[in-house]
Amino acid sequence: MTSEWDYIKLATKLFFSKSPEVLVGTGEDDCAVVKLAKYNIVMTADSLHESTDFPPQMKEWEKGYMSIAVNLSDIAAMGANPKYFLYTVTLKENYPLDKFKEFCYGIKKLADMYNVLIIGGDTDRGNEMSISGFALGYGNRLLLRKNAKPGEKVFLTGELGKAQLTLEQVMNGVSREDSAYPEKLYTPTPRVEEGLKLSKFASACTDISDSLAISLHNISSASGVKIELKIPDLSYLEEFVSSEKALELFLYSGGDYELVYTCKDDELNGIEIGMVIEGSGVFLNNRAVPFKGYTH
Amino acid sequence: MTSEWDYIKLATKLFFSKSPEVLVGTGEDDCAVVKLAKYNIVMTADSLHESTDFPPQMKEWEKGYMSIAVNLSDIAAMGANPKYFLYTVTLKENYPLDKFKEFCYGIKKLADMYNVLIIGGDTDRGNEMSISGFALGYGNRLLLRKNAKPGEKVFLTGELGKAQLTLEQVMNGVSREDSAYPEKLYTPTPRVEEGLKLSKFASACTDISDSLAISLHNISSASGVKIELKIPDLSYLEEFVSSEKALELFLYSGGDYELVYTCKDDELNGIEIGMVIEGSGVFLNNRAVPFKGYTH
Repeated sequence: MTSEWDYIKLATKLFFSKSPEVLVGTGEDDCAVVKLAKYNIVMTADSLHESTDFPPQMKEWEKGYMSIAVNLSDIAAMGANPKYFLYTVTLKENYPLDKFKEFCYGIKKLADMYNVLIIGGDTDRGNEMSISGFALGYGNRLLLRKNAKPGEKVFLTGELGKAQLTLEQVMNGVSREDSAYPEKLYTPTPRVEEGLKLSKFASACTDISDSLAISLHNISSASGVKIELKIPDLSYLEEFVSSEKALELFLYSGGDYELVYTCKDDELNGIEIGMVIEGSGVFLNNRAVPFKGYTH
Repeated sequence: MTSEWDYIKLATKLFFSKSPEVLVGTGEDDCAVVKLAKYNIVMTADSLHESTDFPPQMKEWEKGYMSIAVNLSDIAAMGANPKYFLYTVTLKENYPLDKFKEFCYGIKKLADMYNVLIIGGDTDRGNEMSISGFALGYGNRLLLRKNAKPGEKVFLTGELGKAQLTLEQVMNGVSREDSAYPEKLYTPTPRVEEGLKLSKFASACTDISDSLAISLHNISSASGVKIELKIPDLSYLEEFVSSEKALELFLYSGGDYELVYTCKDDELNGIEIGMVIEGSGVFLNNRAVPFKGYTH
Protein backbone atom coordinates (compact mmCIF):
# COMPACT_ATOMS: atom_id res chain seq x y z
CA MET A 1 0.00 0.00 0.00
CA THR A 2 1.12 3.51 -0.73
CA SER A 3 2.06 5.22 2.54
CA GLU A 4 1.35 8.82 3.48
CA TRP A 5 5.09 9.48 3.19
CA ASP A 6 5.11 8.41 -0.47
CA TYR A 7 2.45 11.01 -1.31
CA ILE A 8 4.25 13.70 0.68
CA LYS A 9 7.60 12.89 -0.92
CA LEU A 10 6.10 13.09 -4.40
CA ALA A 11 4.33 16.40 -3.71
CA THR A 12 7.42 17.91 -2.06
CA LYS A 13 9.51 17.07 -5.10
CA LEU A 14 6.92 18.27 -7.60
CA PHE A 15 6.10 21.52 -5.83
CA PHE A 16 9.68 22.47 -4.99
CA SER A 17 10.51 25.85 -6.34
CA LYS A 18 13.43 28.13 -5.69
CA SER A 19 12.51 31.68 -4.97
CA PRO A 20 14.56 34.16 -2.97
CA GLU A 21 11.65 35.22 -0.77
CA VAL A 22 10.74 31.66 0.23
CA LEU A 23 12.96 30.98 3.26
CA VAL A 24 11.34 27.63 4.03
CA GLY A 25 9.33 25.75 1.41
CA THR A 26 7.14 22.72 1.04
CA GLY A 27 8.02 19.77 3.28
CA GLU A 28 11.15 21.32 4.74
CA ASP A 29 9.98 22.19 8.25
CA ASP A 30 6.91 22.53 10.49
CA CYS A 31 5.81 25.62 8.55
CA ALA A 32 6.57 27.47 5.36
CA VAL A 33 8.24 30.87 5.76
CA VAL A 34 8.17 33.72 3.27
CA LYS A 35 9.86 37.06 3.51
CA LEU A 36 7.86 40.29 3.06
CA ALA A 37 10.12 43.30 3.49
CA LYS A 38 11.69 42.76 6.94
CA TYR A 39 8.97 40.33 8.09
CA ASN A 40 9.04 36.55 8.27
CA ILE A 41 5.54 35.28 7.50
CA VAL A 42 5.08 31.77 8.84
CA MET A 43 2.27 29.57 7.45
CA THR A 44 0.95 26.08 8.01
CA ALA A 45 -1.97 23.89 6.93
CA ASP A 46 -3.13 20.81 8.80
CA SER A 47 -6.27 18.70 8.73
CA LEU A 48 -8.06 16.37 11.11
CA HIS A 49 -10.63 13.65 10.36
CA GLU A 50 -13.25 12.35 12.73
CA SER A 51 -12.53 8.66 12.14
CA THR A 52 -8.76 8.84 12.47
CA ASP A 53 -7.94 11.89 14.59
CA PHE A 54 -10.68 12.32 17.17
CA PRO A 55 -10.42 9.94 20.15
CA PRO A 56 -13.48 8.22 21.66
CA GLN A 57 -15.50 10.27 24.17
CA MET A 58 -14.20 13.55 22.73
CA LYS A 59 -16.55 16.47 23.27
CA GLU A 60 -17.63 18.65 20.36
CA TRP A 61 -15.81 21.76 21.58
CA GLU A 62 -12.64 19.70 21.98
CA LYS A 63 -12.76 18.81 18.26
CA GLY A 64 -12.70 22.52 17.48
CA TYR A 65 -10.00 23.14 20.07
CA MET A 66 -7.87 20.31 18.64
CA SER A 67 -8.19 21.53 15.07
CA ILE A 68 -6.60 24.86 15.88
CA ALA A 69 -4.18 23.37 18.45
CA VAL A 70 -2.37 21.29 15.81
CA ASN A 71 -1.82 24.36 13.66
CA LEU A 72 -0.66 26.57 16.52
CA SER A 73 1.74 23.82 17.54
CA ASP A 74 3.39 24.07 14.11
CA ILE A 75 3.70 27.85 14.44
CA ALA A 76 5.11 27.41 17.98
CA ALA A 77 7.73 24.98 16.66
CA MET A 78 9.11 27.76 14.44
CA GLY A 79 9.41 30.14 17.40
CA ALA A 80 6.84 32.38 15.74
CA ASN A 81 3.84 34.29 17.05
CA PRO A 82 0.51 32.97 15.70
CA LYS A 83 -1.79 35.74 14.52
CA TYR A 84 -4.54 34.47 12.20
CA PHE A 85 -6.54 31.30 11.62
CA LEU A 86 -8.74 30.23 8.71
CA TYR A 87 -10.52 26.91 8.38
CA THR A 88 -12.63 24.76 6.12
CA VAL A 89 -14.95 22.29 7.78
CA THR A 90 -16.85 19.35 6.33
CA LEU A 91 -20.04 18.51 8.20
CA LYS A 92 -22.26 15.48 7.87
CA GLU A 93 -25.90 15.85 6.83
CA ASN A 94 -28.05 16.77 9.80
CA TYR A 95 -25.13 17.91 11.93
CA PRO A 96 -27.04 19.98 14.50
CA LEU A 97 -26.47 23.72 14.63
CA ASP A 98 -25.98 23.68 18.41
CA LYS A 99 -23.20 21.11 18.05
CA PHE A 100 -21.58 23.33 15.43
CA LYS A 101 -21.80 26.24 17.85
CA GLU A 102 -20.00 24.17 20.48
CA PHE A 103 -17.40 23.13 17.91
CA CYS A 104 -16.77 26.77 16.93
CA TYR A 105 -16.60 27.74 20.58
CA GLY A 106 -13.72 25.28 20.99
CA ILE A 107 -11.80 26.94 18.16
CA LYS A 108 -12.44 30.35 19.65
CA LYS A 109 -11.47 29.31 23.17
CA LEU A 110 -7.94 28.39 22.12
CA ALA A 111 -7.66 31.25 19.62
CA ASP A 112 -8.52 33.77 22.34
CA MET A 113 -5.93 32.27 24.66
CA TYR A 114 -3.18 33.33 22.27
CA ASN A 115 -4.87 36.38 20.73
CA VAL A 116 -5.24 34.58 17.42
CA LEU A 117 -7.97 36.06 15.19
CA ILE A 118 -10.23 33.75 13.19
CA ILE A 119 -10.56 35.63 9.93
CA GLY A 120 -12.08 33.18 7.49
CA GLY A 121 -13.86 29.90 7.02
CA ASP A 122 -15.76 27.69 4.65
CA THR A 123 -18.44 25.10 5.45
CA ASP A 124 -19.26 22.09 3.27
CA ARG A 125 -21.17 18.83 3.36
CA GLY A 126 -19.60 15.40 3.27
CA ASN A 127 -19.94 11.92 4.69
CA GLU A 128 -17.25 12.37 7.36
CA MET A 129 -16.59 15.32 9.62
CA SER A 130 -13.20 16.85 8.94
CA ILE A 131 -11.54 20.19 9.41
CA SER A 132 -8.58 21.83 7.73
CA GLY A 133 -6.89 24.69 9.49
CA PHE A 134 -4.57 27.29 8.13
CA ALA A 135 -2.54 29.42 10.54
CA LEU A 136 -0.36 32.41 9.85
CA GLY A 137 2.14 33.98 12.21
CA TYR A 138 5.06 36.35 12.29
CA GLY A 139 8.53 35.26 13.31
CA ASN A 140 11.79 36.95 14.14
CA ARG A 141 14.58 34.48 14.83
CA LEU A 142 13.32 31.18 13.40
CA LEU A 143 13.84 27.75 14.96
CA LEU A 144 14.58 25.55 11.95
CA ARG A 145 15.13 21.81 11.95
CA LYS A 146 18.40 22.34 10.13
CA ASN A 147 19.93 24.49 12.89
CA ALA A 148 21.14 21.78 15.30
CA LYS A 149 24.89 21.85 15.94
CA PRO A 150 27.26 19.33 17.52
CA GLY A 151 27.87 20.17 21.17
CA GLU A 152 24.28 21.16 21.86
CA LYS A 153 21.94 19.35 24.20
CA VAL A 154 18.43 18.13 23.37
CA PHE A 155 15.44 19.13 25.50
CA LEU A 156 11.67 18.65 25.69
CA THR A 157 9.11 21.23 26.80
CA GLY A 158 7.17 18.51 28.63
CA GLU A 159 6.60 14.82 29.25
CA LEU A 160 5.81 12.51 26.32
CA GLY A 161 3.59 9.47 25.93
CA LYS A 162 0.70 10.65 28.05
CA ALA A 163 -1.68 11.24 25.14
CA GLN A 164 -1.16 7.78 23.62
CA LEU A 165 -1.32 6.06 27.02
CA THR A 166 -4.65 7.75 27.67
CA LEU A 167 -5.90 6.98 24.16
CA GLU A 168 -5.17 3.28 24.65
CA GLN A 169 -7.03 3.34 27.95
CA VAL A 170 -10.19 4.92 26.52
CA MET A 171 -10.00 2.66 23.45
CA ASN A 172 -10.04 -0.22 25.94
CA GLY A 173 -13.22 1.05 27.54
CA VAL A 174 -11.87 3.17 30.39
CA SER A 175 -14.00 6.29 30.90
CA ARG A 176 -12.17 9.55 30.30
CA GLU A 177 -12.71 10.54 33.92
CA ASP A 178 -10.80 7.46 35.06
CA SER A 179 -8.09 7.66 32.39
CA ALA A 180 -4.52 8.66 33.20
CA TYR A 181 -4.04 12.04 31.49
CA PRO A 182 -7.27 13.07 29.73
CA GLU A 183 -6.25 16.74 29.36
CA LYS A 184 -3.18 15.67 27.30
CA LEU A 185 -5.34 13.59 24.95
CA TYR A 186 -8.37 15.86 24.55
CA THR A 187 -6.98 19.36 24.98
CA PRO A 188 -3.20 19.41 24.54
CA THR A 189 -1.67 22.85 24.99
CA PRO A 190 0.25 24.06 21.95
CA ARG A 191 3.56 25.37 23.26
CA VAL A 192 3.21 28.87 21.85
CA GLU A 193 4.68 30.73 24.80
CA GLU A 194 7.53 28.26 25.08
CA GLY A 195 8.25 28.56 21.34
CA LEU A 196 8.50 32.33 21.62
CA LYS A 197 10.93 32.04 24.55
CA LEU A 198 12.94 29.40 22.67
CA SER A 199 13.23 31.71 19.68
CA LYS A 200 15.59 33.84 21.77
CA PHE A 201 18.20 31.16 22.46
CA ALA A 202 17.50 27.71 20.96
CA SER A 203 18.83 26.38 17.63
CA ALA A 204 16.69 23.62 16.13
CA CYS A 205 13.13 22.92 17.17
CA THR A 206 10.15 20.89 15.99
CA ASP A 207 6.88 19.79 17.53
CA ILE A 208 6.15 16.17 18.35
CA SER A 209 2.92 15.32 16.59
CA ASP A 210 3.85 11.89 15.21
CA SER A 211 6.59 10.68 17.58
CA LEU A 212 9.81 11.77 19.25
CA ALA A 213 11.69 9.33 17.00
CA ILE A 214 10.31 10.95 13.85
CA SER A 215 10.94 14.48 15.15
CA LEU A 216 14.54 13.67 16.05
CA HIS A 217 15.17 11.98 12.70
CA ASN A 218 13.85 15.11 11.01
CA ILE A 219 16.26 17.31 12.99
CA SER A 220 19.13 14.86 12.49
CA SER A 221 18.76 14.64 8.72
CA ALA A 222 18.02 18.34 8.18
CA SER A 223 21.03 19.38 10.30
CA GLY A 224 23.38 16.58 9.24
CA VAL A 225 24.08 15.58 12.85
CA LYS A 226 23.84 12.54 15.11
CA ILE A 227 21.57 12.60 18.12
CA GLU A 228 22.33 10.46 21.15
CA LEU A 229 19.35 9.99 23.41
CA LYS A 230 19.21 9.37 27.11
CA ILE A 231 15.90 8.43 28.68
CA PRO A 232 14.52 10.73 31.36
CA ASP A 233 12.42 9.66 34.33
CA LEU A 234 9.33 7.87 32.97
CA SER A 235 7.67 7.11 36.29
CA TYR A 236 4.58 9.08 35.16
CA LEU A 237 4.06 6.29 32.59
CA GLU A 238 5.42 3.40 34.66
CA GLU A 239 2.65 3.97 37.18
CA PHE A 240 0.35 2.53 34.54
CA VAL A 241 2.41 0.29 32.24
CA SER A 242 5.63 -1.75 32.16
CA SER A 243 9.01 -0.02 31.74
CA GLU A 244 9.29 -1.50 28.27
CA LYS A 245 5.90 -0.14 27.21
CA ALA A 246 6.69 3.21 28.83
CA LEU A 247 9.85 3.51 26.72
CA GLU A 248 7.90 2.62 23.59
CA LEU A 249 5.29 5.30 24.39
CA PHE A 250 8.04 7.84 25.02
CA LEU A 251 9.85 7.18 21.74
CA TYR A 252 7.12 6.30 19.28
CA SER A 253 3.85 7.91 20.29
CA GLY A 254 2.35 11.23 19.31
CA GLY A 255 -0.39 13.58 20.32
CA ASP A 256 1.32 15.35 23.23
CA TYR A 257 2.29 18.32 21.05
CA GLU A 258 5.38 19.11 23.08
CA LEU A 259 8.40 20.73 21.43
CA VAL A 260 11.83 19.15 21.13
CA TYR A 261 14.71 21.61 20.79
CA THR A 262 18.46 21.84 20.82
CA CYS A 263 20.65 24.48 22.47
CA LYS A 264 23.88 24.95 24.38
CA ASP A 265 22.41 26.36 27.58
CA ASP A 266 18.74 25.88 28.26
CA GLU A 267 16.90 28.87 29.64
CA LEU A 268 13.49 27.22 29.70
CA ASN A 269 14.03 24.51 32.30
CA GLY A 270 13.20 21.78 29.77
CA ILE A 271 13.63 18.03 30.22
CA GLU A 272 17.09 17.03 29.03
CA ILE A 273 16.99 13.97 26.77
CA GLY A 274 20.24 13.84 24.83
CA MET A 275 23.17 15.33 22.92
CA VAL A 276 23.88 16.53 19.40
CA ILE A 277 27.16 15.14 18.09
CA GLU A 278 28.88 14.82 14.74
CA GLY A 279 27.56 12.07 12.50
CA SER A 280 24.11 11.01 11.47
CA GLY A 281 21.09 9.13 12.79
CA VAL A 282 19.34 8.85 16.14
CA PHE A 283 20.74 6.50 18.77
CA LEU A 284 19.88 5.18 22.19
CA ASN A 285 22.57 3.16 24.04
CA ASN A 286 24.46 2.76 20.73
CA ARG A 287 21.44 1.26 18.99
CA ALA A 288 19.76 3.04 16.10
CA VAL A 289 16.27 4.36 16.90
CA PRO A 290 14.04 3.62 13.89
CA PHE A 291 12.02 6.31 12.08
CA LYS A 292 8.59 5.28 13.22
CA GLY A 293 5.49 6.51 14.99
CA TYR A 294 2.10 5.23 15.95
CA THR A 295 -0.39 5.34 13.17
CA HIS A 296 -3.51 6.87 14.65
CA MET B 1 -32.65 20.98 7.44
CA THR B 2 -29.91 23.33 8.52
CA SER B 3 -28.57 25.12 5.45
CA GLU B 4 -24.94 25.99 4.74
CA TRP B 5 -25.87 29.64 5.28
CA ASP B 6 -27.03 28.93 8.84
CA TYR B 7 -23.63 27.48 9.75
CA ILE B 8 -21.81 30.35 8.08
CA LYS B 9 -23.98 32.97 9.79
CA LEU B 10 -23.36 31.38 13.17
CA ALA B 11 -19.58 31.14 12.66
CA THR B 12 -19.36 34.69 11.30
CA LYS B 13 -21.13 36.03 14.37
CA LEU B 14 -19.13 33.94 16.83
CA PHE B 15 -15.74 34.63 15.27
CA PHE B 16 -16.27 38.32 14.69
CA SER B 17 -13.56 40.33 16.36
CA LYS B 18 -12.62 43.94 16.02
CA SER B 19 -8.94 44.58 15.55
CA PRO B 20 -7.41 47.60 13.86
CA GLU B 21 -5.16 45.52 11.60
CA VAL B 22 -8.01 43.37 10.26
CA LEU B 23 -9.36 45.36 7.32
CA VAL B 24 -11.73 42.61 6.20
CA GLY B 25 -12.78 39.82 8.57
CA THR B 26 -14.70 36.58 8.57
CA GLY B 27 -17.64 36.41 6.15
CA GLU B 28 -17.39 40.01 4.98
CA ASP B 29 -15.94 39.55 1.51
CA ASP B 30 -14.29 37.07 -0.85
CA CYS B 31 -11.12 37.12 1.27
CA ALA B 32 -9.90 38.29 4.63
CA VAL B 33 -7.45 41.19 4.58
CA VAL B 34 -4.95 42.07 7.28
CA LYS B 35 -2.54 44.96 7.39
CA LEU B 36 1.17 44.38 7.98
CA ALA B 37 3.06 47.68 7.91
CA LYS B 38 2.11 49.16 4.53
CA TYR B 39 1.04 45.81 3.06
CA ASN B 40 -2.44 44.38 2.58
CA ILE B 41 -2.24 40.62 3.07
CA VAL B 42 -5.19 38.90 1.43
CA MET B 43 -6.16 35.35 2.49
CA THR B 44 -8.80 32.80 1.59
CA ALA B 45 -9.71 29.18 2.35
CA ASP B 46 -11.94 27.04 0.17
CA SER B 47 -12.61 23.33 -0.08
CA LEU B 48 -13.88 20.94 -2.73
CA HIS B 49 -15.39 17.47 -2.33
CA GLU B 50 -15.41 14.74 -4.92
CA SER B 51 -19.12 13.87 -4.59
CA THR B 52 -20.45 17.44 -4.71
CA ASP B 53 -17.88 19.56 -6.55
CA PHE B 54 -16.25 17.42 -9.22
CA PRO B 55 -18.37 16.94 -12.36
CA PRO B 56 -18.64 13.59 -14.16
CA GLN B 57 -15.81 12.77 -16.61
CA MET B 58 -13.42 15.12 -14.84
CA LYS B 59 -9.77 14.20 -15.27
CA GLU B 60 -7.50 13.83 -12.27
CA TRP B 61 -5.31 16.83 -13.14
CA GLU B 62 -8.44 18.94 -13.53
CA LYS B 63 -9.40 18.19 -9.91
CA GLY B 64 -6.07 19.65 -8.82
CA TYR B 65 -6.46 22.58 -11.21
CA MET B 66 -9.98 23.29 -9.91
CA SER B 67 -8.93 23.19 -6.27
CA ILE B 68 -6.46 26.04 -6.73
CA ALA B 69 -8.66 27.86 -9.28
CA VAL B 70 -11.44 28.48 -6.74
CA ASN B 71 -8.97 30.03 -4.31
CA LEU B 72 -7.26 32.19 -6.93
CA SER B 73 -10.68 33.40 -8.05
CA ASP B 74 -11.30 34.72 -4.51
CA ILE B 75 -7.96 36.54 -4.53
CA ALA B 76 -8.71 37.93 -8.01
CA ALA B 77 -12.07 39.25 -6.75
CA MET B 78 -10.19 41.44 -4.26
CA GLY B 79 -7.98 42.89 -7.00
CA ALA B 80 -4.99 41.29 -5.31
CA ASN B 81 -1.98 39.42 -6.60
CA PRO B 82 -1.92 35.75 -5.53
CA LYS B 83 1.48 34.64 -4.26
CA TYR B 84 1.29 31.45 -2.19
CA PHE B 85 -0.82 28.32 -1.97
CA LEU B 86 -1.07 25.65 0.71
CA TYR B 87 -3.41 22.67 0.68
CA THR B 88 -4.64 19.71 2.67
CA VAL B 89 -5.86 16.74 0.70
CA THR B 90 -7.88 13.72 1.82
CA LEU B 91 -7.29 10.61 -0.28
CA LYS B 92 -9.18 7.36 -0.31
CA GLU B 93 -7.44 4.08 0.57
CA ASN B 94 -5.57 2.72 -2.43
CA TYR B 95 -5.58 6.01 -4.31
CA PRO B 96 -2.79 5.30 -6.80
CA LEU B 97 0.41 7.31 -6.61
CA ASP B 98 0.37 8.05 -10.34
CA LYS B 99 -3.12 9.53 -10.05
CA PHE B 100 -1.88 11.69 -7.19
CA LYS B 101 0.99 12.83 -9.38
CA GLU B 102 -1.49 13.85 -12.07
CA PHE B 103 -3.61 15.63 -9.45
CA CYS B 104 -0.58 17.58 -8.16
CA TYR B 105 0.43 18.42 -11.70
CA GLY B 106 -2.97 20.09 -12.17
CA ILE B 107 -2.37 22.28 -9.12
CA LYS B 108 1.08 23.18 -10.35
CA LYS B 109 -0.06 23.92 -13.89
CA LEU B 110 -2.38 26.71 -12.73
CA ALA B 111 0.00 27.91 -10.00
CA ASP B 112 2.79 28.33 -12.56
CA MET B 113 0.49 30.29 -14.86
CA TYR B 114 0.24 33.04 -12.24
CA ASN B 115 3.62 32.57 -10.55
CA VAL B 116 1.95 31.27 -7.42
CA LEU B 117 4.28 29.20 -5.23
CA ILE B 118 2.98 26.04 -3.53
CA ILE B 119 4.66 26.24 -0.16
CA GLY B 120 2.91 23.67 1.99
CA GLY B 121 0.60 20.70 2.10
CA ASP B 122 -0.77 17.89 4.19
CA THR B 123 -2.03 14.48 3.06
CA ASP B 124 -4.56 12.36 4.95
CA ARG B 125 -6.80 9.32 4.49
CA GLY B 126 -10.56 9.41 4.41
CA ASN B 127 -13.54 7.83 2.71
CA GLU B 128 -14.06 10.67 0.22
CA MET B 129 -11.51 12.62 -1.76
CA SER B 130 -11.51 16.27 -0.78
CA ILE B 131 -9.08 19.16 -0.90
CA SER B 132 -8.86 22.38 1.04
CA GLY B 133 -6.85 25.20 -0.40
CA PHE B 134 -5.43 28.27 1.28
CA ALA B 135 -4.21 31.13 -0.85
CA LEU B 136 -2.39 34.27 0.20
CA GLY B 137 -1.83 37.34 -1.90
CA TYR B 138 -0.83 40.97 -1.65
CA GLY B 139 -3.15 43.80 -2.58
CA ASN B 140 -2.87 47.51 -3.11
CA ARG B 141 -6.19 49.15 -3.84
CA LEU B 142 -8.79 46.58 -2.74
CA LEU B 143 -12.07 45.81 -4.53
CA LEU B 144 -14.53 45.39 -1.68
CA ARG B 145 -18.18 44.42 -1.95
CA LYS B 146 -19.10 47.48 0.07
CA ASN B 147 -17.59 49.93 -2.42
CA ALA B 148 -20.42 50.15 -4.99
CA LYS B 149 -21.83 53.67 -5.42
CA PRO B 150 -25.01 54.96 -7.09
CA GLY B 151 -24.29 56.13 -10.61
CA GLU B 152 -21.91 53.31 -11.41
CA LYS B 153 -22.51 50.63 -14.00
CA VAL B 154 -22.26 46.89 -13.45
CA PHE B 155 -20.04 44.68 -15.64
CA LEU B 156 -18.95 41.07 -16.07
CA THR B 157 -15.51 39.83 -17.10
CA GLY B 158 -17.14 37.14 -19.24
CA GLU B 159 -20.25 35.19 -20.17
CA LEU B 160 -22.19 33.33 -17.48
CA GLY B 161 -24.13 30.06 -17.46
CA LYS B 162 -21.75 28.05 -19.60
CA ALA B 163 -20.43 25.87 -16.79
CA GLN B 164 -23.88 24.86 -15.53
CA LEU B 165 -25.21 24.31 -19.06
CA THR B 166 -22.30 21.97 -19.74
CA LEU B 167 -22.69 20.24 -16.37
CA GLU B 168 -26.34 19.48 -17.11
CA GLN B 169 -25.37 18.08 -20.50
CA VAL B 170 -22.73 15.69 -19.11
CA MET B 171 -25.04 14.73 -16.23
CA ASN B 172 -27.52 13.75 -18.93
CA GLY B 173 -25.01 11.47 -20.60
CA VAL B 174 -23.46 13.77 -23.19
CA SER B 175 -19.72 13.11 -23.54
CA ARG B 176 -17.49 16.03 -22.59
CA GLU B 177 -16.20 16.21 -26.16
CA ASP B 178 -19.72 16.81 -27.44
CA SER B 179 -20.76 19.16 -24.61
CA ALA B 180 -21.21 22.89 -25.16
CA TYR B 181 -18.40 24.54 -23.17
CA PRO B 182 -16.27 21.85 -21.50
CA GLU B 183 -13.35 24.20 -20.79
CA LYS B 184 -15.64 26.42 -18.67
CA LEU B 185 -16.82 23.44 -16.61
CA TYR B 186 -13.55 21.53 -16.19
CA THR B 187 -10.87 24.23 -16.25
CA PRO B 188 -12.37 27.68 -15.63
CA THR B 189 -9.81 30.47 -15.71
CA PRO B 190 -9.62 32.46 -12.48
CA ARG B 191 -9.68 36.11 -13.52
CA VAL B 192 -6.42 37.07 -11.84
CA GLU B 193 -5.15 39.39 -14.57
CA GLU B 194 -8.54 41.04 -14.90
CA GLY B 195 -8.75 41.53 -11.11
CA LEU B 196 -5.38 43.27 -11.09
CA LYS B 197 -6.47 45.59 -13.89
CA LEU B 198 -9.80 46.25 -12.14
CA SER B 199 -7.96 47.20 -8.95
CA LYS B 200 -6.83 50.36 -10.75
CA PHE B 201 -10.30 51.74 -11.54
CA ALA B 202 -13.27 49.61 -10.34
CA SER B 203 -15.18 50.05 -7.06
CA ALA B 204 -16.92 46.87 -5.90
CA CYS B 205 -16.09 43.42 -7.18
CA THR B 206 -16.80 39.81 -6.31
CA ASP B 207 -16.43 36.51 -8.09
CA ILE B 208 -19.39 34.46 -9.24
CA SER B 209 -18.98 31.03 -7.74
CA ASP B 210 -22.56 30.40 -6.58
CA SER B 211 -24.62 32.61 -8.89
CA LEU B 212 -24.85 36.13 -10.29
CA ALA B 213 -27.95 36.71 -8.16
CA ILE B 214 -26.08 35.85 -4.95
CA SER B 215 -23.03 37.91 -5.95
CA LEU B 216 -25.17 40.97 -6.73
CA HIS B 217 -27.14 40.60 -3.49
CA ASN B 218 -23.82 40.50 -1.62
CA ILE B 219 -22.69 43.74 -3.30
CA SER B 220 -26.11 45.35 -2.84
CA SER B 221 -26.38 44.63 0.87
CA ALA B 222 -22.70 45.38 1.66
CA SER B 223 -22.84 48.69 -0.23
CA GLY B 224 -26.40 49.66 0.73
CA VAL B 225 -27.41 50.20 -2.90
CA LYS B 226 -29.97 48.94 -5.39
CA ILE B 227 -28.85 47.13 -8.51
CA GLU B 228 -30.97 47.22 -11.66
CA LEU B 229 -30.10 44.49 -14.09
CA LYS B 230 -30.41 44.41 -17.83
CA ILE B 231 -29.85 41.15 -19.63
CA PRO B 232 -27.05 41.00 -22.21
CA ASP B 233 -27.04 38.88 -25.34
CA LEU B 234 -27.49 35.24 -24.27
CA SER B 235 -27.37 33.68 -27.74
CA TYR B 236 -24.38 31.55 -26.62
CA LEU B 237 -26.88 29.76 -24.31
CA GLU B 238 -29.95 30.04 -26.53
CA GLU B 239 -28.17 27.93 -29.13
CA PHE B 240 -28.71 25.04 -26.73
CA VAL B 241 -31.71 25.85 -24.52
CA SER B 242 -34.87 27.97 -24.43
CA SER B 243 -34.65 31.72 -23.70
CA GLU B 244 -36.30 31.11 -20.35
CA LYS B 245 -33.76 28.47 -19.36
CA ALA B 246 -30.94 30.66 -20.68
CA LEU B 247 -32.02 33.49 -18.39
CA GLU B 248 -32.22 31.10 -15.44
CA LEU B 249 -28.69 29.84 -16.16
CA PHE B 250 -27.44 33.42 -16.46
CA LEU B 251 -28.92 34.55 -13.14
CA TYR B 252 -28.77 31.52 -10.89
CA SER B 253 -25.94 29.21 -11.93
CA GLY B 254 -22.35 29.10 -10.78
CA GLY B 255 -19.05 27.59 -11.75
CA ASP B 256 -17.96 30.08 -14.40
CA TYR B 257 -15.73 31.99 -11.95
CA GLU B 258 -16.15 35.28 -13.75
CA LEU B 259 -15.96 38.56 -11.82
CA VAL B 260 -18.81 41.05 -11.49
CA TYR B 261 -17.72 44.62 -10.79
CA THR B 262 -19.01 48.16 -10.61
CA CYS B 263 -17.38 51.33 -11.94
CA LYS B 264 -18.14 54.64 -13.64
CA ASP B 265 -16.10 54.09 -16.79
CA ASP B 266 -15.05 50.60 -17.67
CA GLU B 267 -11.49 50.20 -18.92
CA LEU B 268 -11.62 46.43 -19.26
CA ASN B 269 -14.19 46.07 -22.03
CA GLY B 270 -16.50 44.03 -19.79
CA ILE B 271 -20.06 42.98 -20.51
CA GLU B 272 -22.44 45.67 -19.23
CA ILE B 273 -25.32 44.17 -17.24
CA GLY B 274 -26.83 46.94 -15.16
CA MET B 275 -26.73 50.05 -12.99
CA VAL B 276 -26.11 50.91 -9.35
CA ILE B 277 -28.75 53.27 -7.99
CA GLU B 278 -29.91 54.45 -4.60
CA GLY B 279 -32.03 51.99 -2.66
CA SER B 280 -31.66 48.31 -1.88
CA GLY B 281 -32.11 44.90 -3.49
CA VAL B 282 -31.48 43.45 -6.94
CA PHE B 283 -34.07 44.02 -9.67
CA LEU B 284 -34.76 42.99 -13.24
CA ASN B 285 -37.59 44.80 -15.08
CA ASN B 286 -38.89 46.10 -11.75
CA ARG B 287 -39.14 42.61 -10.28
CA ALA B 288 -36.98 41.53 -7.34
CA VAL B 289 -34.34 38.94 -8.22
CA PRO B 290 -34.26 36.35 -5.40
CA PHE B 291 -31.11 35.44 -3.47
CA LYS B 292 -30.59 31.96 -4.88
CA GLY B 293 -28.14 29.76 -6.70
CA TYR B 294 -27.92 26.23 -7.93
CA THR B 295 -26.96 23.77 -5.27
CA HIS B 296 -24.24 21.65 -6.81
